[in-house]
Parts: sequence; structure tokens; C-alpha cells
Amino acid sequence: MSGNKSFRPRARLPRGFRDRGAAEIAAERAVLDTIRRIYESYGFEPLETPSFEYTDALGKFLPDLDRPNEGVFSLQDEDGQWLSLRYDLTAPLARYVAEHAQSLPRPFRRYQTGTVWRNEKPGPGRFREFTQFDADTVGSASPAADAELLMMLADTLEALDLGGDYVIKVNSRKLLDGVLEAAGVGLDDLARRGIVLRAIDKLDRLGLDGLAKLLGQGRKDESGDFTKGANLPATAIDAVLKFFAANDPESGRGGPRSNTQILAELQSFVGTSTIGAAGIADLVALNELIAANGYADGRIAIDPSIVRGLDYYTGAVFEAQLTFPVANEAGETVVFGSVAGGGRYDDLVARFTGQAMPATGVSIGVSRLLTALRNRTSAQIAPLVVVLAMDKAGLAESFALVRELRAAGIRAEAYVGDAGLKAQFKYADKRGAAIAVMEGSDERARGEITLKDLALGAELAKSVESRAAWVEGRPAQIAVPRGELVARVNAMLAREG
Amino acid sequence: MSGNKSFRPRARLPRGFRDRGAAEIAAERAVLDTIRRIYESYGFEPLETPSFEYTDALGKFLPDLDRPNEGVFSLQDEDGQWLSLRYDLTAPLARYVAEHAQSLPRPFRRYQTGTVWRNEKPGPGRFREFTQFDADTVGSASPAADAELLMMLADTLEALDLGGDYVIKVNSRKLLDGVLEAAGVGLDDLARRGIVLRAIDKLDRLGLDGLAKLLGQGRKDESGDFTKGANLPATAIDAVLKFFAANDPESGRGGPRSNTQILAELQSFVGTSTIGAAGIADLVALNELIAANGYADGRIAIDPSIVRGLDYYTGAVFEAQLTFPVANEAGETVVFGSVAGGGRYDDLVARFTGQAMPATGVSIGVSRLLTALRNRTSAQIAPLVVVLAMDKAGLAESFALVRELRAAGIRAEAYVGDAGLKAQFKYADKRGAAIAVMEGSDERARGEITLKDLALGAELAKSVESRAAWVEGRPAQIAVPRGELVARVNAMLAREG
Repeated sequence: MSGNKSFRPRARLPRGFRDRGAAEIAAERAVLDTIRRIYESYGFEPLETPSFEYTDALGKFLPDLDRPNEGVFSLQDEDGQWLSLRYDLTAPLARYVAEHAQSLPRPFRRYQTGTVWRNEKPGPGRFREFTQFDADTVGSASPAADAELLMMLADTLEALDLGGDYVIKVNSRKLLDGVLEAAGVGLDDLARRGIVLRAIDKLDRLGLDGLAKLLGQGRKDESGDFTKGANLPATAIDAVLKFFAANDPESGRGGPRSNTQILAELQSFVGTSTIGAAGIADLVALNELIAANGYADGRIAIDPSIVRGLDYYTGAVFEAQLTFPVANEAGETVVFGSVAGGGRYDDLVARFTGQAMPATGVSIGVSRLLTALRNRTSAQIAPLVVVLAMDKAGLAESFALVRELRAAGIRAEAYVGDAGLKAQFKYADKRGAAIAVMEGSDERARGEITLKDLALGAELAKSVESRAAWVEGRPAQIAVPRGELVARVNAMLAREG
Repeated sequence: MSGNKSFRPRARLPRGFRDRGAAEIAAERAVLDTIRRIYESYGFEPLETPSFEYTDALGKFLPDLDRPNEGVFSLQDEDGQWLSLRYDLTAPLARYVAEHAQSLPRPFRRYQTGTVWRNEKPGPGRFREFTQFDADTVGSASPAADAELLMMLADTLEALDLGGDYVIKVNSRKLLDGVLEAAGVGLDDLARRGIVLRAIDKLDRLGLDGLAKLLGQGRKDESGDFTKGANLPATAIDAVLKFFAANDPESGRGGPRSNTQILAELQSFVGTSTIGAAGIADLVALNELIAANGYADGRIAIDPSIVRGLDYYTGAVFEAQLTFPVANEAGETVVFGSVAGGGRYDDLVARFTGQAMPATGVSIGVSRLLTALRNRTSAQIAPLVVVLAMDKAGLAESFALVRELRAAGIRAEAYVGDAGLKAQFKYADKRGAAIAVMEGSDERARGEITLKDLALGAELAKSVESRAAWVEGRPAQIAVPRGELVARVNAMLAREG
């Protein structure tokens, strides 16, 4: 490779991608293991689909349909067919189920975790690959399938020590369709329905005024960009706004209402709409199951303001929100917000087969969940012992020492570089090692080894008057019999806690 | 999405990619956990680099340099820069180290596991994405760094229960360079050196005759394809052939030789070559360390026939081979072969920085290792209990039953579909469930539940004379008090073993 010495590439990360270090990897592994344990206890089994799908099989179901390149990484295969990296784990599942429909148990319940890619404009905290953890039930139209996912998600958040700090909000797309139908808007204009759903999804940010504009002719934002509206008739806009005003949890209508109360009130908004009535019936059945199992205690709450932006949802939609306060980029205190979402998508498999196939699923945004958990979990790698290399002759003995420590379950490494002792201490420091072990030839002859408590040493160094005195005194450093290596290291680690 | 009903994509996997099911995923997870545990006990820490790197940063170091599109999946970013999916975990490490050279401990030791992509022609058992598990030590030129990796690899293979079934072969590129130098061939013609290395890498398959042709003008294979040779002078070809003939383990020179014996014999082949002498000195130092730690007992063996195809190796090269017999595609019995490889690559970081940075690493081909372990490991998901839905009213109670089972550590699911009892039994069968639990309204009134041992039931069904008698007799099915659910299920699972 040094054949072309004239060209020297710059070492840099591609835009929107990042490297991850030991602490984050350990935290993610702990979270994934917890989710996996709960999901497997529910009888969900793992499936892995590949990174690539044929572009036509993947379809176009990204949240941001407005973007020109559609947010997907695509390339052409040698045979001319287009491949795309998966942007979620739902579209590949639909392909898998359509391909194997005859042989799968029905309902088919699987979980999958892995990287997904979005070819979006990168920004601060906005990356182009991240980890999702999905569970889906395909082949059941029963609200029991949705209820099971919701209870499993609640159990997972509890197992992640988030008890009391989350709420899982549930709604049904059919309910909103019922409101629109009752107001005389047809549901077969899918583009218009999509604009309505995305507008409602932004309700939090834009308020009822902004929503009214997006339901009407459109809205110009602060930067002057214009978003085309759904052009609904005034009566329909009025019905939708009344619906959300009545169901605004901030509207101060006297404390939180129970799921049963909310469901009773919703009835008036769907009028005689068949689809609206079906939506309410689904939510009633779902609520019965979660209530009977003790999850309707505020953890799983009916909330008509949840719509989820994706076009493909057809029934129940859900979103898990963390309710503890965090500071946003502007320094304001806000609740952390969404870490998982999902819903019922009864048409995705039919794209391939033409056969109806009910399905429902939930996806955890693992990267976002990790951000939320950052200051709460303590997934740590065990303390490290570094055996320093005092002389070349002692290298084989260094390896013998670390093998002995490892056999006792202690994480240990021999210094395998070629620098002097001062550089080796600097190395041990950068590695965050707890203890350094040294065995010079004199010590070896005496049958001794020296242990240095690096944390204690650093502490003492702060209070000693002069560096010379500190070096002379060799604090936190003791010579012990070679045969007591493991016992003395364990004692030192125990003292550090 | 049903907006465009005219187009119905075919549900199919992209060529060269595959789906993976529960058994393989569980087996891979067990293998990854074992490798991780050993590597972390050695003090290696995890690092994750992204899937994509800038194409210029990735370089071109694939084994098969002959292929036209160079084997990489690449696409152009919106800003015109080319991105490529990583084809191994070494090139991204070089980029990472070059980017952070100042702040990293030296030596820098990290492990990384993840998917790598090769844009190659797919074939049977030949996939375009697979899993690797790498460990590397950057910033040490000491043979101790190589020795550490080799002992860690041996410990890993032992932990995977492969003790006695593997050998890790070690060589040095410097040795071969020494043979060539002694025969008067310059080492600065990198293209020619590459042809020589790839030719030697095929020695197993082509034999000494085929090697002679590739070192000379070239070789036509059975299909008539011609591979250009290295055009070495006859004296050099002769020296190389003598070197391999003398070191052929199959040459019947009287049983296996010790590392020390082999190193003594190699001396004669490098003559007065400085680089050859350096190669022997490296291997002697490495062997001293592994011998002193008990690994030179045949597990780590010096073997001059190992060269590894990659151009970028500069010193020690290693390869772990599984020695147990398997049948190849032609039905012949062969040894399983390579599952891990690596070596010293002192120039990769310098590509970016211009500064020399010694480095050495080992990569485990996890997918290949899984194939080898397939019939040996027993990574299994725990037995499953399915609670059947007898009536809609009982659904909430079904969930209560599975929650009770799960709390006792039993994997359990409630049937959440909407089919009848016959279809539910078929479902439990397809899911491989061990036990079905049923609670009809009559039983509920009596405070009972029914357990059916599905494995025993299937067994009995074979021996019963008529299906009618079998259905009547309800074998392997018992009614038990509701309060004894967990105890009775545990007893039934214990009986099945």
C-alpha cells in the first residue's frame, strides 16, 4: 500500500456517522440484553434479516416523505437491480412474512434488533445509522395482540429501572378516521390523509393554530418555508380542532381521566361513523385486557393526540414517552419524550401477496433510550490490573502473572509495548487501571512482586508537598510474596470498592 | 401504500444475502459472548466504528485484488464524496487510530465485532455480508504483542470447547522476503511481491507444480482461464520451491517437529538476508513467550507455509485451523480448515499520517466458526408454554396465567390470534411448545386448569390404534387446581428433561 506514496487520505469520519467507545457499548449491550430477556420470556423469538433489501421490496414508508432522495441509501447491483439498506425493521419483516407465509406459525411473533440507516442530512445528535429493537405479531387482528405488545413494553421499561418515569400512550387511527368521516371527509384520498396525519403529529410543536393552517391551505414557518396543507373543508377542520381541544391533557379539565372515562367521552366525536365505532371498540377491548392485568394504572393510557407520523398504520398506534425532565438545546426544561412507538399495520404484507394480513408491532429507539439512561445505569467494565514490563527477560513471567489473575476472574493485561517504565505508568493511567504489578529481576530473585494501588497513589500525590518526596516515599506501593498475588490484588480491589 | 395497487413487488431476498432464524442467532450470540468474555479478561476494550467509511480512507486491501469492482459496496454522498461499506474491521481501525493518535494509550488494544460487506459474486454458502470478531494491538513492535494475541486466540478456542481440535500456525512475512532476497529478487516491486504471496497462499490447492508456474510466467486452470505469473528468475523459483518442499508437513520427514527444531532449520534458507534474519529473530522471541506459558505444545506451531493472501502484512502472520474431518462438496473427507487469521501490519496507519505505527491483529470469521460448531454446541432457547384462548372472556385470564409462569422463570405466551382451538393446537405444534395450558369457562368455575404435555401427546398418538380413540382418551392431558399451575408445569417440564 505504500506503493502510492504521493496520496495520503485524511483520517476522518463520514458525515453523520460516529465511533462508539467502551462505556457506550457496554451500556447498549446491557439494554439489549434486558429487552431480549423480557421479549424471550414472552415467547417472541429472534429473526435476522439482511442489511440490504431490493429497493422495490422495501417500499417508501419513511416518516419524512417530503425529502427528495427519500432518505434511503441505495445502490445498483451488478445485474442492474437496485438494493437499499433497510431504514427500519418493519419493511424487511413484511418481505419475510410474504415470502414464507405458508410455513410460519400464525400468529407469527418475532423480535429483531439491529442497525438501520437513514440517508438524511446529518446534524448535531442526528446520525445516519442507529439501533432499533422491534417486536411484531403478524397474523392476528385481535386487540389481544396489541395489548400483549403494550404490556411487554411496560415490563421492559420497568426492567430498565424506568418504573414511574414513563407512560405508554395508545390511540387508534380508526378514531381519527371516524372524526374525519363524521365531518364528511373521504378516507380514500391517501395523500391528503397523510398530510392530515403528519400535521397532527406536529401538534405538540405547532399548537392548534398551526394545525388549523396545515389542515387548511398550508403554513409558512419562521424561515419562510411553506408547507402545503390538506385543504380540508372548514367544517372538517373545525371538527378536528374541537376533537383535540377536548382531548388536550393540558386543557385543565380537572386532573387526569381514567382510560374508561376517556373512551366514554370519545364516543361523541365519531358520530355514526362505522370506522370510528370500530376504533372505539378496539380500544375498549384492549383496555379491558390491560386493566385486568393491572397496567391501566397510568402506565398504559388512552390518549387521542398520539397519531404517529407513518402512513402505514391502520389501527392502534402507541408511543412510550419518558416523563422525567431534561434540558433541551435552548436550555429549557422539557420532558424527555418518545423512546418507542408502533402500531397496527394491516396492509404491509398485502403489498406483496394481495392477501390481507393483520399485523402489529412496536419499535424501541435504542440509541435514544441510551441517551435517556446515560446518567442512570452503571454498566461498567470490571477493574483492570496491568502488569508492567521491567525487563525483556521478565516478559514470559508477566504473561504467567496475568494468566494467574485471569484464572481468578480478575481482568488483567501484560504491557506488550516497548517503552520504558515512565511511559508504562502513563499507559496504565490512560487505561484507567486500578493496580499496576511490577516484578524486577531483584524482586524475582527474592520471590516478591510489587503492587501499586494507582487510584490511591493519584489521591496521595495531590496532598504530598513536593514531587521528589512523593517519588521517594512510594506511597500506595507494597512488596508482597509472589505466592500471594491473587489474594493481595483482591484485597486491594476490595479496598477501592 | 395500497394507493398504487397495480404494482406488486415479488417478496425475495437480494442475491447473496440471507435471513437467519432463532437457532443460528442463539448459537452466534453464545459464541460472541464467549469471545468477548475472554478478550475482556485480557484487558481488550470494545470499539465500534460505523458501517460506512470514506472510500479513500478505506483503501484497497481486499484479498481478491483481481476482481474488477474491487469487492466493495460504494455509493456517492450528496456532497459528491464516495462512501463504502466496510469490508473488514482493520481498515476502519487504522482510520480511527490515525484520527486519535495523540489521545490513545499506547499500545492501543481494542476488540470489535460486527458485520462486514463484500460486493462479490454470490454462490452456494458464499454470502455478501458476514460477522467478524477482531482484536488488534496498535503501537507496539514487540513480538510480545503477537504472542499475546495468539495465546488469547488459543484460550478462546479452548473456551469454545475446541480443545484438541485446532492448531494456530505462525509464520513471518520477513522469512519469505528473506528467501526471495537471498535468491536475488528485490522486495520493492510490490505488485510482483503480491503475486508471489497469493500464489503461495494457493499452495494447498495447486501443489508445488502449480506454484512453480505462478512464480514463473503464469498458469492456465482447468476452465482455460490464465493467471499471470510473477516472472521470477529460475534461481528464485528454485529457492522458493526448495523452501516449501523442505517445510512441507506432509513430506514425511519423520513426525512433527518442535517449534525450536523448525526455527533452527529455517536459518539455512534466508542466507545472509537481513530481513530474513529479523523474521527468524521475531519468531524465536515469540516462541519463547508462548513456550514459557505452555502454548508450544502443538497448539501454536511455527509453520512456514502460512502466508495469508493480504498484501498489507509486514511481519508475523497467523492462521487458526480446525483439524477435525468434514466432508467437502465433492464428498471427500478434508479437515475443516481456517476459522481465524491475522498478522502484523506496520504500514496501515502510516497511510494517513506518514508516521510509522506498528500494529498486529487477529480476526475470527464468526460465520465460518459457527458452521464448524453447528453440531457441537447446544445453545437453545428455553422450553415454551402456550396458553390457549378458549373464549374471548378468558383472554385477560390467559395473560394472568402467562404472567404467573414468567414470574417463575418459565418462558410462556398467551395465544393472541383469533382462530379456533384446532388451529391453536397446530400453532403450538409449529412453535415447538412443550406444554399447552387451557382454561375453559367450566374449568374456571371449578377452579381448575388443564395442562397438556405436547411432546408426550405426540409420542402417544403414534401408538394409539384409531384417532377417535386417541381423541377420546385425551392422553397426556390432566386437570389440576389453578393454584398449582407453576408447580405442575415445572413437574411436567422436568419429566421431559
